Amino acid sequence: METFFKVKKPEEVFRIIDRFGPLGDETIPLEEAFGRVLSEDVTSAEDLPCFARSVMDGYAVRAKDTFGANESLPALLEVTGEVVMGQIPKMAVREGQAVKIPTGGMLPEGADGVVMVEYCHLLDETTLEASRSISPLENVIQPGDDFKKGATVLKMGRRLRPQDLGVMAGLGQSEVSVYKKPRVAIISTGDEIVAIGDAPRPGQVRDINRYTLSAFCHRLGAESIYSGLCPDDFDTLKAMVEKSLRLADTVWISGGSSVGTKDLTLKIFETVRDFELLVHGISISPGKPTIIGRSGPTHIIGLPGHVASALVVAEVFLTRLMARLSGQLDDFGGLKMHVKAELTRNIESASGREDYIRVRLFRDGNTVFAQPVFGKSGLISTLVEADGLIKIDMNTEGLYQGQKVTVALL
Amino acid sequence: METFFKVKKPEEVFRIIDRFGPLGDETIPLEEAFGRVLSEDVTSAEDLPCFARSVMDGYAVRAKDTFGANESLPALLEVTGEVVMGQIPKMAVREGQAVKIPTGGMLPEGADGVVMVEYCHLLDETTLEASRSISPLENVIQPGDDFKKGATVLKMGRRLRPQDLGVMAGLGQSEVSVYKKPRVAIISTGDEIVAIGDAPRPGQVRDINRYTLSAFCHRLGAESIYSGLCPDDFDTLKAMVEKSLRLADTVWISGGSSVGTKDLTLKIFETVRDFELLVHGISISPGKPTIIGRSGPTHIIGLPGHVASALVVAEVFLTRLMARLSGQLDDFGGLKMHVKAELTRNIESASGREDYIRVRLFRDGNTVFAQPVFGKSGLISTLVEADGLIKIDMNTEGLYQGQKVTVALL
Repeated sequence: METFFKVKKPEEVFRIIDRFGPLGDETIPLEEAFGRVLSEDVTSAEDLPCFARSVMDGYAVRAKDTFGANESLPALLEVTGEVVMGQIPKMAVREGQAVKIPTGGMLPEGADGVVMVEYCHLLDETTLEASRSISPLENVIQPGDDFKKGATVLKMGRRLRPQDLGVMAGLGQSEVSVYKKPRVAIISTGDEIVAIGDAPRPGQVRDINRYTLSAFCHRLGAESIYSGLCPDDFDTLKAMVEKSLRLADTVWISGGSSVGTKDLTLKIFETVRDFELLVHGISISPGKPTIIGRSGPTHIIGLPGHVASALVVAEVFLTRLMARLSGQLDDFGGLKMHVKAELTRNIESASGREDYIRVRLFRDGNTVFAQPVFGKSGLISTLVEADGLIKIDMNTEGLYQGQKVTVALL
Repeated sequence: METFFKVKKPEEVFRIIDRFGPLGDETIPLEEAFGRVLSEDVTSAEDLPCFARSVMDGYAVRAKDTFGANESLPALLEVTGEVVMGQIPKMAVREGQAVKIPTGGMLPEGADGVVMVEYCHLLDETTLEASRSISPLENVIQPGDDFKKGATVLKMGRRLRPQDLGVMAGLGQSEVSVYKKPRVAIISTGDEIVAIGDAPRPGQVRDINRYTLSAFCHRLGAESIYSGLCPDDFDTLKAMVEKSLRLADTVWISGGSSVGTKDLTLKIFETVRDFELLVHGISISPGKPTIIGRSGPTHIIGLPGHVASALVVAEVFLTRLMARLSGQLDDFGGLKMHVKAELTRNIESASGREDYIRVRLFRDGNTVFAQPVFGKSGLISTLVEADGLIKIDMNTEGLYQGQKVTVALL
């Protein structure tokens, strides 16, 4: 226990987490790949599209036959046929000719542009007036305009979005190589904790952290395994930790990490094979009594028992850990869930630690305001009322009313 | 077809969508409720917590016994026992007494505050020096501090977050009443479309929209049903639409809604029982040829065939439709996925329509820049390269380099 209050600064903890590599990969069907992270670059095995196509309904022509055409002096062209969707056109377009073409239709040989139907007027079945001059390639997508054969289409480390699945479909890639989802084993400890179905007697509380942390994992695309609820008993908890280490990529234990008489977590971690203690205490509030260690490739996290503290630690550090395990290299990861807002009042903060303040957001006119939600970290109501967190830096004594703050959405 | 170009403005379309009510509800286990939308208010059946508890490791005392205590003049107290976690304390705290208590322990009768262990010094087994004066209720959570019995804890219409599941667990609510997930049937049409496993011949393309739209549904918490790939044939498509209407809450057909020779979608919609055409054309770009209708309680959407147009329409209008069907009443729905950025160049825009411009985001120092990604809406590469969309209002002729814009993340 001698290391206990050698607390680390948040940036030191980030550096430690950033050393954790991604998990292995697996191949899954494309339709299951949404939200997963690519473990290999995707390259184009062919030109996409693989033929020249029209992006408009109109007439395929030789552009130079329309040069100078306008409403008062339209170009007169001979209509020699029609492109059928999905088929190779049977006819070529020669000088002075036009072929009717639908959006997405394949451009006939000889044509190099499409006059939109709005500028076309049929005098009879085979005579067309085109009242607009087009440039070569106008209204046409050429082979490889999306991606040339061999081009890198998507880079490894990308968390797949709908359109990313779309482009893989376009390339005929029905399977995709992704990093495995992190499996998180969740253990709640404490003699006072009872299962959700039990009526707590005075002195007891229901297991809030299990449900909060499990949903938190799902939000990050991880799988949660509920290992169980454990009394503060050395042998029982040790057995549960060892079993969890075999099942999961990371084990999260909440409770038991404060300096209580029943503090067991670290003692048990230290009995785990090849255990390496990486972090014991972080200079943030709430969340100081956090433990991070590893046993071989498996990460073990000791979280505070208070749900608000546990969730702040999860948001700040375990989001990053999950991104690392998932292989995500997302330059905008941090941006996506942040909102700028104006603070409604002054907040004081002790220097020497990062403070995370829960805030409620509301709009008034065009301004978004952040109103601090104060309350003890043992109260889950503060989290339910809060829309997000703001950070007060270690070397800042506080924030001022009216100041613009960045809110990480909870 | 006479209604075709009576295009509606986006705000008219939003008003139409806002008339669509939520789907029915269902009861599910709490552990499956993350991301679902509450269909009933959650009220507290009991005080939470149901007993007074300490939020610190320390000694439970009568606060007035510590009044005036400090390091040079500590209060001397008699230690009469220890609170065991999860149990009702066996002893009461009388004047001049103290009982050891762990974080989360139940406050003994007579005590009204806790002196943190850091300010306590044991002279012998039963004699304590407390070097700090505490106020009544200091370091204590009282019964009902989270929620009083009968209080509204969560309101219907909330999309459930991790902490919302946590509070329901705290209240012992193992089941939760939520709105059903929207079931979306997806149909791709076009003689030129082939399934992902087939090698397209010249003139053919693979089915990109199926995968893009299906993943889009999953992102919004909806279920997608893939109805199939359909040639531009009246009877085949009609049968597929009718079957989809029986299976789904909303049917989305992409392709076939431009003014092509093969335009069939609307003709088929009009044969559906009780079909009501609500929108035929929207003044946005891309995405103008969008159809919205209903057949009884089921919504039918005709989306443009070009994937970029289809995804813009989905982001702008179908996100809102899905929120309506899901019952979500989220005051911050729009905020969550937006980023402010600075535009890298001027963009022109035609007035009389809303333009949606795809942009790539990048950081330079502390500034986030939005760089327009230009390209035909038939190119999926433009979507893959883009991080988001910016809107140019109907009555604006363009945006300027350096202007701050709001980017909806794609």
